[in-house]
Amino acid sequence: MVATDAETKARAGVLHTPHGIVETPVFMPVGTQGTVKTLSQRELRELDARIILGNTYHLYLRPGMALMTEAGGLHEFMNWDRAILTDSGGFQVHSLAALNKITEDGVVFQSHIDGSKHLFTPEKVIEIEHLLGADIAMVFDECTPYPCSREDAKAAGERTLRWARQCLDAYDKYGRKSLAGHAQALFGIVQGSTYPDLRVRFAEETVALNFSGYAVGGTCVGEPKEKTWEAVSTVASHLPADRPRYMMGSGTPEDLIRGVMRGIDMFDCVMPTRNARNGTVFTQRGKVSIRAARHAREFEPIDAGCACYACRNYTRAYIRHLHHTREILGLRLATIHNVHFYLQLMRQMRQAIIAGDFAHWQTTFTNFYKGTTDE
Amino acid sequence: MVATDAETKARAGVLHTPHGIVETPVFMPVGTQGTVKTLSQRELRELDARIILGNTYHLYLRPGMALMTEAGGLHEFMNWDRAILTDSGGFQVHSLAALNKITEDGVVFQSHIDGSKHLFTPEKVIEIEHLLGADIAMVFDECTPYPCSREDAKAAGERTLRWARQCLDAYDKYGRKSLAGHAQALFGIVQGSTYPDLRVRFAEETVALNFSGYAVGGTCVGEPKEKTWEAVSTVASHLPADRPRYMMGSGTPEDLIRGVMRGIDMFDCVMPTRNARNGTVFTQRGKVSIRAARHAREFEPIDAGCACYACRNYTRAYIRHLHHTREILGLRLATIHNVHFYLQLMRQMRQAIIAGDFAHWQTTFTNFYKGTTDE
Repeated sequence: MVATDAETKARAGVLHTPHGIVETPVFMPVGTQGTVKTLSQRELRELDARIILGNTYHLYLRPGMALMTEAGGLHEFMNWDRAILTDSGGFQVHSLAALNKITEDGVVFQSHIDGSKHLFTPEKVIEIEHLLGADIAMVFDECTPYPCSREDAKAAGERTLRWARQCLDAYDKYGRKSLAGHAQALFGIVQGSTYPDLRVRFAEETVALNFSGYAVGGTCVGEPKEKTWEAVSTVASHLPADRPRYMMGSGTPEDLIRGVMRGIDMFDCVMPTRNARNGTVFTQRGKVSIRAARHAREFEPIDAGCACYACRNYTRAYIRHLHHTREILGLRLATIHNVHFYLQLMRQMRQAIIAGDFAHWQTTFTNFYKGTTDE
Repeated sequence: MVATDAETKARAGVLHTPHGIVETPVFMPVGTQGTVKTLSQRELRELDARIILGNTYHLYLRPGMALMTEAGGLHEFMNWDRAILTDSGGFQVHSLAALNKITEDGVVFQSHIDGSKHLFTPEKVIEIEHLLGADIAMVFDECTPYPCSREDAKAAGERTLRWARQCLDAYDKYGRKSLAGHAQALFGIVQGSTYPDLRVRFAEETVALNFSGYAVGGTCVGEPKEKTWEAVSTVASHLPADRPRYMMGSGTPEDLIRGVMRGIDMFDCVMPTRNARNGTVFTQRGKVSIRAARHAREFEPIDAGCACYACRNYTRAYIRHLHHTREILGLRLATIHNVHFYLQLMRQMRQAIIAGDFAHWQTTFTNFYKGTTDE
């Protein structure tokens, strides 16, 4: 840890990976299919993204592991020489695949693309992540839905723990390295749904397995926000201070701040990229729907003072026109802006934590930022 | 003129515009709606596009001229400080608009977007181009379809000539300047369909009106290729040597070479950008469908030796994956490559003409380039 906030649990740290240093707290843009949607790798570098997320489920199905192995792993395949985290596919086999069936061995699922049948086991997922060559791999987990009975949450958490041990064994078998030969970190995932005692128990038992980092799983699946934060706080307070903590699949700018205040170091979410493609952009004053008629004659940037390529070069009027005419440049500019907004938000938080100024920064930001306002 | 080829009618020249120098022969990427599809203006600069084309018909409908005027013209609106040529909408009111009706005054048409009714007259079109602020404006013409009776071709050509005079008057009324205050060139358009004597007559009568440049209109509308080249050769031989010649809406790489050999200086076509989005890329050996299975494991650039961003950084295997997964970066990389290919082709021709080596260059290129081959 570089610094911790005096008033909250916010932390500033550094992750060392074979593909460079990642300063935390960090937001990881989502590159599901080997590309962060609409962006080039050069643009990602210019946005100073230090780590992106790849989806095991999607990449396993397309382009498939034979090709990925031949390519030399995901870094080589997509020409990205900074860090990558791969998820385990645990979330996607439930949310995307058809006819998935969970057994003690793993999950049988049908591809959402061609209906083909596949089996993900802990060993299989670690093999895939070994071939993909992520700097940070995630264990294969069973992500509980919401609502979830206590019995189901207990069973899923226990299975996740058993799978975690199997993942560790497989990870050791590969020498904790990718096929390309660089060191890989493996993170555990804590389940437990909305049951604090289960969250505590699974946190402690996962920590006992001694992973390089820990993720809070099973949140942001439709539960009320207070349940989310209860789970995050509970889990975070039972994780070791010297390991990174990752809140999977979250969230809004406000969520990132709330997560950081609870001691979370890493985030990922499709929100900045997906919203951008729907014409919703983030500004210091809140979200703005760039398609709205009121922006038609605004010859000013999306966000005054923003240093991104879109704001330095194009007006709201032009970007709105591009969205109205369904031009790809409109999707690109909104994405560049939103990813910049998210990454800049994390950098600001980190600076504030280091400067011992986090509470003040947070108040100032929140006073300006109205999540529901459309200026 | 900088140089002319000894064996063919190929010419190398320079256009001076208020937004920079344009070396000819030149290909103009098509930016129909104020954006060259998928590309940013920075990428266009990096590709060293010196002039792009904007479509009067589309921009008039969206974002409309009130907004365009407020923005200060198309250059300002889209943040492009190099040259722009705007067409006159004459082609689009026939090909895109519903229920168009030609009278001596102009063309009444219905928007392809919302069905609203509009009237384009020569004066109206020049006003629009004055507001758009193109460096080169085109006269409003009646583009004949193929086939076209001699009677219709004669009537359309005569009407185009009358409209050309009206365009010149309107152009003079605006002081031959854009609303933003910079000088505009106005090009005449020669019609005449597939009738050589009409082509000669309309070429001479258009030249008598003394435009800054001349376009061959009414080609590439479905006629056999030999008719196209007959019309181009006929018209070109009746145009003054000291004015640029523009072949509208053409074409394939082979077409560009054939056009240059017949004394054409300027080209535009959606082919490099549209083909790119369909997964067809141009290489020194011919067209390649990047979606084809045979490219799945080709860990090499689209075109070995190509200096574009796509070829310097990404493999065919990766770009194919992006096209298969419908990722926007795939469309972008193919577009960058194809526009580079077209612009580079023009630069090579120019160099060969200046070096007195055009015939040799053309033979070498054609020996390698197989339009129909898919390697």
